[in-house]
Amino acid sequence: MPRYTAVVTLLAVAFYFFLATRVAVARGSFNVPLPATTGNPDFERIFRVHQNTLEWLPIFLVSLWLCALYLNDAGAAALGLVWIGGRALYFTGYSKAVARRLPGFFIQSAACILLFVGALAGIILHWPSG
Amino acid sequence: MPRYTAVVTLLAVAFYFFLATRVAVARGSFNVPLPATTGNPDFERIFRVHQNTLEWLPIFLVSLWLCALYLNDAGAAALGLVWIGGRALYFTGYSKAVARRLPGFFIQSAACILLFVGALAGIILHWPSG
Amino acid sequence: MPRYTAVVTLLAVAFYFFLATRVAVARGSFNVPLPATTGNPDFERIFRVHQNTLEWLPIFLVSLWLCALYLNDAGAAALGLVWIGGRALYFTGYSKAVARRLPGFFIQSAACILLFVGALAGIILHWPSG
Repeated sequence: MPRYTAVVTLLAVAFYFFLATRVAVARGSFNVPLPATTGNPDFERIFRVHQNTLEWLPIFLVSLWLCALYLNDAGAAALGLVWIGGRALYFTGYSKAVARRLPGFFIQSAACILLFVGALAGIILHWPSG
Repeated sequence: MPRYTAVVTLLAVAFYFFLATRVAVARGSFNVPLPATTGNPDFERIFRVHQNTLEWLPIFLVSLWLCALYLNDAGAAALGLVWIGGRALYFTGYSKAVARRLPGFFIQSAACILLFVGALAGIILHWPSG
Repeated sequence: MPRYTAVVTLLAVAFYFFLATRVAVARGSFNVPLPATTGNPDFERIFRVHQNTLEWLPIFLVSLWLCALYLNDAGAAALGLVWIGGRALYFTGYSKAVARRLPGFFIQSAACILLFVGALAGIILHWPSG
């Protein structure tokens, strides 16, 4: 069982939960009561940080675990930490302005792509021959 | 392989699918045609039940399975049933009024937190020493 | 480890990522700047394709992997390919008109239901007796 990846997965989920609490706080600060999700651009950017992270979670979690199981636990976990760091930068940037979401977004994208390539390489390397 | 958790996972997914059918029915009842997701607060609350459940599924599924694999199958499955029960209460409450979403929401949150702590404890307990 | 299902899972995630790029392109084509997600029905249909695929991913991935692990790898992978095909048809149809989303939607639903039934059957078949 890949233990480093298991710990990083819990960290990623905890960070994702933290983003949900930022949305709840922003509802109060910018006066966007439930069940609305629009009406104030400052709220909407924080809402989009959370939504976009949710949208990428299937790509991240699938690539992370297939990379850990078929290639290497510690390597997958290290890239998982890079992903969390990129997501944190994405949150702080996007909270301020739409254009400032990009550096963090590219870091998390790069981490996901490397995990995806690692997973594919691991599956091919372990393919039983003839 | 954790069999109790596997059954509860299928139950959770089936309940989540049921929520999607409630959104489809609400589109008809409250006259919110596709692709819109806003325009009627009664529809929007049911839409938010489904979306919020989707938003929590990565937290729930990750914590549930890491708890089952690293700590205990039957215990994880039991907390998974509590989560489904909390989600059902969240659905019936939130369908009626925004404030009535809270009891079910806290029950499902508590189940997720316990699964998360159980997963972390299981990983630490199984960490190979020196 | 189910290798066919692992490959199909990476394919499904890659297709889902492709849908996200279609939303980004549609933002430009139909002039819906971030963080908005509404304002133009042509954009909103493509946005809904991506969102609906996200909404179904937990159902699909859970059923796919439980079917692969508890019943049969190659069979689960084959149904996973049908799911991706149905999702591709859903995308091309829904991009044109709301009503044209249905054929692809029913194909991907049928693949998910079969995977769900296969997972349940596999868990029951492997249940240790007495």
